[in-house]
Amino acid sequence: MSFFPPTLENLTEKFASLPGIGQKSAQRLAFHILSLPDQDAAAFAEAILEAKRSVHCCSICQNLTDSDVCFICSSPRRDEHTVCVVSDPKAVIAIERSREYNGLFHVLHGVISPLNHVGPDDIKIKELVTRVADGSIEEIIMATNPDTEGETTAKYISRLLKPFGVKITRLAYGIPVGSSLEFADDATLMRALEGRQEF
Amino acid sequence: MSFFPPTLENLTEKFASLPGIGQKSAQRLAFHILSLPDQDAAAFAEAILEAKRSVHCCSICQNLTDSDVCFICSSPRRDEHTVCVVSDPKAVIAIERSREYNGLFHVLHGVISPLNHVGPDDIKIKELVTRVADGSIEEIIMATNPDTEGETTAKYISRLLKPFGVKITRLAYGIPVGSSLEFADDATLMRALEGRQEF
Repeated sequence: MSFFPPTLENLTEKFASLPGIGQKSAQRLAFHILSLPDQDAAAFAEAILEAKRSVHCCSICQNLTDSDVCFICSSPRRDEHTVCVVSDPKAVIAIERSREYNGLFHVLHGVISPLNHVGPDDIKIKELVTRVADGSIEEIIMATNPDTEGETTAKYISRLLKPFGVKITRLAYGIPVGSSLEFADDATLMRALEGRQEF
Repeated sequence: MSFFPPTLENLTEKFASLPGIGQKSAQRLAFHILSLPDQDAAAFAEAILEAKRSVHCCSICQNLTDSDVCFICSSPRRDEHTVCVVSDPKAVIAIERSREYNGLFHVLHGVISPLNHVGPDDIKIKELVTRVADGSIEEIIMATNPDTEGETTAKYISRLLKPFGVKITRLAYGIPVGSSLEFADDATLMRALEGRQEF
């Protein structure tokens, strides 16, 4: 039996449907919403609608944007011959934050994952092939996550792009800067040895 | 510098303003909203507005309801001579779930807490006094939480209601059922001894 008004129960359920939010947290959040001034609650609802309405994928790189072409693709100062392929928009931010990269991006919005029923057609691979087929791209840097699914996706794409004669590279594996060898796992150490460079 | 569209940043901020949601979680939730079908996102926004619009305090007991008088106050089967005073709507549910109590409630929506600048006028105490002054209430059961603020609030209210000649009681303190003496704290053990009853 439910002791709360149905509209409050409904709001609680909505919060509980979000990832990482349990029933108790959802109730706490719903109560918090009730305690907000009317205009703040309305602003919250509007923020949801507005984000859904205005945010979509850049027509070139598939990164999230509220205009037709994102600020990276439309910048005249970026090297348009290099494209870094990442699995999601958060990876774009991580790379941008390093201020080391001046090329363009391609956001796949996922990785190939048979266990989760995600195939090559479910992520933005054909958009990447179209870009490469246009001919102005000289290097593709695969920057999917260094896990099984990220690796599989990177390999699949590199095979797919080989016929176009474009240079395909992969981010280097190794010991993270600032970490300790003591805590590095075997696979990372092995890759770090394999990829060793001369001083 | 922000790398995401402003509407997405705005939605992230809204989530981050909720209690217990940090910046990373807020971003994850905002991305989840973007991944929802349009109608689900719209339903989420509408749930917020609808809960804010329809949920308010019962005109008698101040519990949350979407009608003028809540389902407990409007039930003809409840004992209207007994009122249980609790700090918030969640306590009403806890007591209802025990199926032991058949009287009415009064929800204070807070406790007196000088440190948080909550005085007697900031919670629903005068509504309780008005109910008691009406004369049909015979017993008030103080059921605020057994902490300093709950105790202070209970004492303040009982002093305030004394002139009306109503019987005022307090929930029993003691060892929680199913727990072990080994883990009971000193204060609880002391109260359990003080409140000991004959077999």
